[in-house]
Amino acid sequence: MLGFSTFAAQNQEMYRTHTCGELRSAQIGQTVTLAGWVQTVRKLGTSITFVDLRDRYGITQLLLGEKLHEQLSGNPLGREFVIQAKGKVTERTSKNPALPTGDIEITVESYTILNKAAVPPFTIQDDTDGGDDLRMKYRFLDLRRQAVKKNLELRYAVNRAARNYLHENNFMDLETPFLIKSTPEGARDFVVPSRMNPGQFYALPQSPQTFKQLLMVSGYDRYYQIVKCFRDEDLRADRQPEFTQIDCEMSFVEQEDILTMFEGMIRHIFKTVKNIDYTEEIARMTFDEAMWHYGNDKPDIRFGMKLLNLKSAYTINGKKPGTGELINGAGFGVFDNAEAVLAIAAPGCSEYTRKQTDELTEWVKRPQIGMQGLVYIKYNTDGSLKSSVDKFYSEDKLKAIADAAGAQKGDLILILAGREERTRKAMSELRLEMGRRLGFRRDNEFKLLWVLDFPLFEYAEEENRWVARHHPFTSPKPSDISIMINNNPVIENADKYLEHPYNRIKANAYDMVLNGNEIGGGSIRIFQRELQEKMFAALGMSPEEALHKFGFLLGAFEYGAPPHGGIAFGFDRLCAILGGSESIRDFIAFPKNNSGRDVMLDAPSTIDDIQLHELSIQLKNIERDGL
Amino acid sequence: MLGFSTFAAQNQEMYRTHTCGELRSAQIGQTVTLAGWVQTVRKLGTSITFVDLRDRYGITQLLLGEKLHEQLSGNPLGREFVIQAKGKVTERTSKNPALPTGDIEITVESYTILNKAAVPPFTIQDDTDGGDDLRMKYRFLDLRRQAVKKNLELRYAVNRAARNYLHENNFMDLETPFLIKSTPEGARDFVVPSRMNPGQFYALPQSPQTFKQLLMVSGYDRYYQIVKCFRDEDLRADRQPEFTQIDCEMSFVEQEDILTMFEGMIRHIFKTVKNIDYTEEIARMTFDEAMWHYGNDKPDIRFGMKLLNLKSAYTINGKKPGTGELINGAGFGVFDNAEAVLAIAAPGCSEYTRKQTDELTEWVKRPQIGMQGLVYIKYNTDGSLKSSVDKFYSEDKLKAIADAAGAQKGDLILILAGREERTRKAMSELRLEMGRRLGFRRDNEFKLLWVLDFPLFEYAEEENRWVARHHPFTSPKPSDISIMINNNPVIENADKYLEHPYNRIKANAYDMVLNGNEIGGGSIRIFQRELQEKMFAALGMSPEEALHKFGFLLGAFEYGAPPHGGIAFGFDRLCAILGGSESIRDFIAFPKNNSGRDVMLDAPSTIDDIQLHELSIQLKNIERDGL
Repeated sequence: MLGFSTFAAQNQEMYRTHTCGELRSAQIGQTVTLAGWVQTVRKLGTSITFVDLRDRYGITQLLLGEKLHEQLSGNPLGREFVIQAKGKVTERTSKNPALPTGDIEITVESYTILNKAAVPPFTIQDDTDGGDDLRMKYRFLDLRRQAVKKNLELRYAVNRAARNYLHENNFMDLETPFLIKSTPEGARDFVVPSRMNPGQFYALPQSPQTFKQLLMVSGYDRYYQIVKCFRDEDLRADRQPEFTQIDCEMSFVEQEDILTMFEGMIRHIFKTVKNIDYTEEIARMTFDEAMWHYGNDKPDIRFGMKLLNLKSAYTINGKKPGTGELINGAGFGVFDNAEAVLAIAAPGCSEYTRKQTDELTEWVKRPQIGMQGLVYIKYNTDGSLKSSVDKFYSEDKLKAIADAAGAQKGDLILILAGREERTRKAMSELRLEMGRRLGFRRDNEFKLLWVLDFPLFEYAEEENRWVARHHPFTSPKPSDISIMINNNPVIENADKYLEHPYNRIKANAYDMVLNGNEIGGGSIRIFQRELQEKMFAALGMSPEEALHKFGFLLGAFEYGAPPHGGIAFGFDRLCAILGGSESIRDFIAFPKNNSGRDVMLDAPSTIDDIQLHELSIQLKNIERDGL
Repeated sequence: MLGFSTFAAQNQEMYRTHTCGELRSAQIGQTVTLAGWVQTVRKLGTSITFVDLRDRYGITQLLLGEKLHEQLSGNPLGREFVIQAKGKVTERTSKNPALPTGDIEITVESYTILNKAAVPPFTIQDDTDGGDDLRMKYRFLDLRRQAVKKNLELRYAVNRAARNYLHENNFMDLETPFLIKSTPEGARDFVVPSRMNPGQFYALPQSPQTFKQLLMVSGYDRYYQIVKCFRDEDLRADRQPEFTQIDCEMSFVEQEDILTMFEGMIRHIFKTVKNIDYTEEIARMTFDEAMWHYGNDKPDIRFGMKLLNLKSAYTINGKKPGTGELINGAGFGVFDNAEAVLAIAAPGCSEYTRKQTDELTEWVKRPQIGMQGLVYIKYNTDGSLKSSVDKFYSEDKLKAIADAAGAQKGDLILILAGREERTRKAMSELRLEMGRRLGFRRDNEFKLLWVLDFPLFEYAEEENRWVARHHPFTSPKPSDISIMINNNPVIENADKYLEHPYNRIKANAYDMVLNGNEIGGGSIRIFQRELQEKMFAALGMSPEEALHKFGFLLGAFEYGAPPHGGIAFGFDRLCAILGGSESIRDFIAFPKNNSGRDVMLDAPSTIDDIQLHELSIQLKNIERDGL
């Protein structure tokens, strides 16, 4: 053999024998090597220094004695320095019961600075002094904070729990492509110019919807993926251009099969991640019930305060069940002229001062809520009633309203009046706000709810046409298929769109709601070509356009497509709620800001002219440097 | 309560009580409902029809008797129809031991056609009559074939095994962003125009490299992700613009820690997925050894036939160990003038006919191999030697060459001569070809190998500069850091680049090779700002460019970066090899063709002018319709 057949020396000692979270009194006497970050440095007298050494797994106290004094003073240890220390596990004189490693410390024999650290631009603590922008720019430091670490650990636990449950139930993780075809319907696609196909573009998927349906046509029976999706939307607060879904699809199922399966998944997640036995039945409610009782298709049912529809233009199957009998004929023009009059009873608020009711009135008049004013009835603890509309309503009438609102003595009834849609939305917001103020919306209480029987279509006023409320692949209720097939989707009279038969068609669609947040949504899909074509036509797509965009799916439906349905969970949102937070950004390792920018990377950014040239594109109406 | 609080009927019977793979004789007598695809329809006489019903889980035989005759003849069942059948599990008269459900059949009481199927454009069988293009266009049908289904099941099993192993070893799945910054170095980025930041672009990640390094700086200690990556390369055969990596990173590790950890992972995958106990030690070899003995940095070690370097210009630490003593001075100009003369001994091939050696000569002369000719020595079973260069070499000399090549009686020695690099590459190809022809490369035999001690740099002739062989974040061997620090990377004399000190620097990098395929590769990373800056400078990046592209990483290294390293496995390739295939496309649900097109979707495609306008880009030099 030739003489060069030797490895470079690989025998350097290991960086650590243990992590900073695992040593206990059982290891006293052992010689160990630890590595990690300097959390704190405390001097005791002139010759002893304590260092709290931190890694992902915990904190261990190091004791650096006299013989290291010279090394220490020559090259002082700073916070966030990375060091390796070797020494003996010894019993602590003053134990720290708050720390799992608190019974021991390491009497250090030698240590090495592996890397120095500059002073961080903000403190690495739960209550950091760093503002949002600064923490995002230095996200790699922000991620060191225990609060953020816990969130990402929870995220991984949810990921793992979902995968395990789905695996046990015969679901297969099947990867779908990211470079697909642009078929904008609803949100905008992000697109990717193709260098090899000049003038052509891929799109990034808004969801793997059509692919998972094809996998059902292919017979894979049960599919899942925890997968990134992309939507080029104007970012509202707490939306991200890229987000993650737990995406699932099943064959040979009815709606009930899916509800049962995913009730199981969410219970499993609660148990595994939060150690919560969610044994109670998961509530169900129709879309109409949700809108009627809560003014909202994702009601927070941790608390009551249901809406009393004193008068309503809300239609249920074309009917208007809110007649106004409790308020009509009193000569109060605000109510008489309103399309809708809605009330809630806020428990225990009858003693609100004038200042408090005025403040609430101001709250509903804010542009985000947009109401003209607020009417209130105090149902006093002595049984008397006092209102801001005493001029028009006798105490008997007020009592009838209070009773209808489910009010008890001591409650405050709040009433809004105006145009149906705005008033219902405003009352929903007011209910949530009162629930928050009254402490009814606790982070550590979890209430699940299925909302069912959504309308299949929504009316798009600008284009005077129907759009799919869920998406164009959602099946109507079997009983409503004939309405869809036998009527012309064209809306002849825009003013009377509510009376169009398509407005009555219910979808085989369902949303899972947790504490007032939609955490998942799905539907039973159309699986017959004819019905899918009718759907595309109903949405105003010409047959040519439907073929161009979705020819592959229509084609697939001709070769033996099984009945199928599915659901997708908003993974970021689910994690945030389970973590007791309103903000999904706290549960994403590297989030983007509200302008879709990654401020750490400084992305997006300009690219070289040579890249543009290769892609056969050029910038339009933009001064490269002058913008 | 109001009267509309009722659900739409959800009570339709379930589509199936069992799958097509689960019924056994234990269920005889039970009434069941199955749903699936019609695999075959066989008539027995006039009144009995057998249907093989298929789903993901198996096949069950249905017996449709006389009372269904009318329904059947009015609306005949075709292949790939989707049906639901209800009936009683009965014992088969002629059992089928090849089928898990072969002991029983379903005596059908009633059935429903859930969906019809047109005649598929190719047969849904392992040996389908469909060509590649047709199968890709109808991929949703191709995916029904058992052969493809098995591949995707294997893929999921590997995914699951890798996740479970990594989870058990404290790795966390942490998602990194897909919309990042373009920092082309090596392959081209796919880019995504930003609508909200006109004139700016995101890039899709070629790998999560810098993010996983940041996660180490953030203290996450052990990271993994099974994640899509993107490279806009001119696609060679069996490359995909989007591909999947098992991407991992660890803190406080030396190379040896990583090798051990991932030997564990691959053994776990072998055991779980293939039920193979890969207990033998995993071989290790330096890059130099691999090149010297196999002409290749990813040698297939399922068989021997090592290269004999009769004469070589290959340098190992600047030395040329191949002197030519066995062939020099014989007056054979081809050898005398060649930079390299390499031989292999093909076992048992001494009886090759003239036709066979001529064919081999033609094989090495093909443009893909590019040699001028082939010299052979037959080491006959009787001990005599006969060669195509008898004129120059005595039998004694031939014997010495044969011995040096490790040949036995009955072997055929094949010799190539020419320029070093081409000859070595050609000999590697010839060795692999002979291995294949001689049956040494068995799909069901698996040999793992680590290749170590790669050069840190490669010479880029066109630009007369160094490029990173692995990537710019790879650390040099600790012993070679001083060479890197203390020498100027500029190559003054292009002809003598081999003598530049940088050519000698070895990397802390490693590849895992399986049966001659690189399935994984990684390195210990640079974690000090100064060394990283030196690396960027060595690659010809100005300090400004380095800051613009990688400022976030250089910044992160200032705040306490731990030593760290990682590895990424090519998930598609790993699955293909474990599945005994050469083609990764067979292991991807929806692959693209060699032009990067998805022929099923017809993507990429043109997009609307309005989309272009919103993105502030326009097409360049392209006739939209005339292309």
